[in-house]
Amino acid sequence: MSAAARPRVVIVGCGFGGLFAARQLKRAAVDITVIDRTNHHLFQPLLYQVATAGLSAPAIAAPIRHILARQRNVTVLMGEVMAIDLSSRSLSLEDGQRVDYDHLIVAAGATHSYFGHPEWQAHAPGLKTLEDAFDLRGRILTAFEHAERSHDAQERAAWLSFVVIGAGATGVEMAGTLAEIARMTLRGEFRRIEPQHARVILLEGGERVLPAFPPDLSQRALTQLERLGVTVRLACRVSSIDAQGVSTIDAQGPSTADGERIDARTVIWAAGVAASPLGRTLGVPLDRSGRVIVADDLSVPGHPEVFVVGDLAAAISGGQPVPGVSPAAKQMGRHAASNICRQLDRAPTQPFSYRDYGTLATIGRNAAVAFFGRVHLWGYPAWLTWLLAHVYFLIGFRNRLVVLLDWAWAYWRFERSARIVIEPVKPP
Amino acid sequence: MSAAARPRVVIVGCGFGGLFAARQLKRAAVDITVIDRTNHHLFQPLLYQVATAGLSAPAIAAPIRHILARQRNVTVLMGEVMAIDLSSRSLSLEDGQRVDYDHLIVAAGATHSYFGHPEWQAHAPGLKTLEDAFDLRGRILTAFEHAERSHDAQERAAWLSFVVIGAGATGVEMAGTLAEIARMTLRGEFRRIEPQHARVILLEGGERVLPAFPPDLSQRALTQLERLGVTVRLACRVSSIDAQGVSTIDAQGPSTADGERIDARTVIWAAGVAASPLGRTLGVPLDRSGRVIVADDLSVPGHPEVFVVGDLAAAISGGQPVPGVSPAAKQMGRHAASNICRQLDRAPTQPFSYRDYGTLATIGRNAAVAFFGRVHLWGYPAWLTWLLAHVYFLIGFRNRLVVLLDWAWAYWRFERSARIVIEPVKPP
Repeated sequence: MSAAARPRVVIVGCGFGGLFAARQLKRAAVDITVIDRTNHHLFQPLLYQVATAGLSAPAIAAPIRHILARQRNVTVLMGEVMAIDLSSRSLSLEDGQRVDYDHLIVAAGATHSYFGHPEWQAHAPGLKTLEDAFDLRGRILTAFEHAERSHDAQERAAWLSFVVIGAGATGVEMAGTLAEIARMTLRGEFRRIEPQHARVILLEGGERVLPAFPPDLSQRALTQLERLGVTVRLACRVSSIDAQGVSTIDAQGPSTADGERIDARTVIWAAGVAASPLGRTLGVPLDRSGRVIVADDLSVPGHPEVFVVGDLAAAISGGQPVPGVSPAAKQMGRHAASNICRQLDRAPTQPFSYRDYGTLATIGRNAAVAFFGRVHLWGYPAWLTWLLAHVYFLIGFRNRLVVLLDWAWAYWRFERSARIVIEPVKPP
Repeated sequence: MSAAARPRVVIVGCGFGGLFAARQLKRAAVDITVIDRTNHHLFQPLLYQVATAGLSAPAIAAPIRHILARQRNVTVLMGEVMAIDLSSRSLSLEDGQRVDYDHLIVAAGATHSYFGHPEWQAHAPGLKTLEDAFDLRGRILTAFEHAERSHDAQERAAWLSFVVIGAGATGVEMAGTLAEIARMTLRGEFRRIEPQHARVILLEGGERVLPAFPPDLSQRALTQLERLGVTVRLACRVSSIDAQGVSTIDAQGPSTADGERIDARTVIWAAGVAASPLGRTLGVPLDRSGRVIVADDLSVPGHPEVFVVGDLAAAISGGQPVPGVSPAAKQMGRHAASNICRQLDRAPTQPFSYRDYGTLATIGRNAAVAFFGRVHLWGYPAWLTWLLAHVYFLIGFRNRLVVLLDWAWAYWRFERSARIVIEPVKPP
């Protein structure tokens, strides 16, 4: 083939980091291979809406090979990269297939961390993939179904108790939406239970919700959560999770006597994030949460041909750690791709500098917080900003239409369009 | 409760039969319990579009309790009925819970039949539930992904071969749509394979496709299938199915030497239907395919308080067996409910009479066949009729909008909106 002599760029992972790296190389004289374990790019900021039955999966996901179909220098492979071998400049897939590279961008992202308690995962699933979202959606909707069927008051109360662990953006979104589902969406649809009496409890180990936000907005978020009916427990740590519920200890008190037992059949983990285990196979220094410590140009020290971007990278910009958010992943992906182009031109690489355009978190109907430098927003203006920004950044015109239609429907009719549990009841 | 003295009507299954029975009892002074193993009513005629990535699951499914929310005499339970005890007038759910009835409508539907070869199911899944549809969608889309990754020509050809067994309505729809996906939707999105060279083979044991249609329309359907690129084998029976493909024998020749081996990694079962195993627990006479032989008023002989409707019923109307199609299930559901009202009024029940409004089958873009008595349609007019009828009969205004939007998109852009495989690649 005539293209055989072109440098081979391999991109591992097609989240925001990987996708924007591939697009940045659109006009480069390289052969790009994008490898992802799924067939789709996922708009992760709206994943909680799939989990809470507001959107269908195809509304926030698009096939990677469709997005990149017209970029003729890209080959897309669906596969899981098991290990990267820096010395031979190759990586191996789940079936043993080997892929060689001249330049590599690792954008493998992050997964859940249960702080040394992997046994909690079965009882408190997290939310990173579409598979997770379907699992959570099934658990949430069938919890109300179990409650309707139960003849035991205590059991019914446990099915109607939802615990969300971790009050970052995902935890706040999940708790706010769960309260809305119970109080608005399901109202009048049950005969034996009153879904609006469901308890939604948000547990946070720190002193305030949304710790990445300025304190005044954390306070605004707390007020909005409580107005929606969410019970927020701050400075509260989880000591155990099982199929029946959660035990907590007071983060300030030294004695477990301050703790509490919450009987809840649905527990959602939104607390800990760990870098993809793929980082470990590189054999280079990692930070405490398993992220690869990258040079200021995002390359792996000693390996200028390898870049790490997104949640897997521990990068510094302006003396500050780059946050694990999607705008940062996009910027890093683009920057790593540009540095590869510079290397091909035998020019020096440039250091990465993160540009913060603002931070948004939604809580529920007309409720959100946002800050853009010193401009702080909350309530309806913040919510509208959040909504427009998320529709704008969605991949694909059709998805924007579908999401807007679903949201308009949900807003005016209090209905959620994707209240479908795929799995039927299975006999024991 | 004041309503305790009202007769208890239990409806098992909320497909077309069960749903239309429940709605027919809207004004009846009864307490209705609708029990379904899933949380949704499914518009089964469009299920093949979920399996072939044209529609998302929520577009053709709606929560049963949402559909029936305003009908105050209905309680909806998500559960699987394991057995019916006619003598004690009760049924048992999967967790042992017992539900008593005064009147019962059994609308449990049908499942796949593998003609005594249950081992085929793992290699040739059928299409009855949303779970089936997601399984098939994943298999179809990842087959192309496997082909793109394979370095072996023979293996690649096997991944690009799709066999559909059975040329009834579902088989014809699946085969036609698969050919369209390969030739139109995926065109230009792969680098190593040419998806338009995929083989789609439709196997039929009988002498013509769509045996329920008049012979001239079977011929039209065959021509349209072949124009789409489907290879149709008539009078061809399957002798074995395994992970690598299908072996066939010529249905006319007595010797297996006439048979053929088709290497195909994706095989879809659209051949056999068997009644729900719940029918067997009644202990009453069944027909050959396990359906309950009902009296002319749709009741179980000797049990005027029990009615069986839909695909589980072997009913006769005008001397002809009632076909296993959704309009028949709707009509039977309504009729059984009306007969219960007559019983409550101490009036005699009425015999069921099936009204045939016509039969439609779609094949692909602008390709379908339809007949309404002596009026036969094919090609574009049949396709447009099929399209309008299916949008009209969809449950819920929102779903109609969403389906129309998706179909318009698919028609003009040849894109399919739900090309999302939920499951990621799993390491072995």
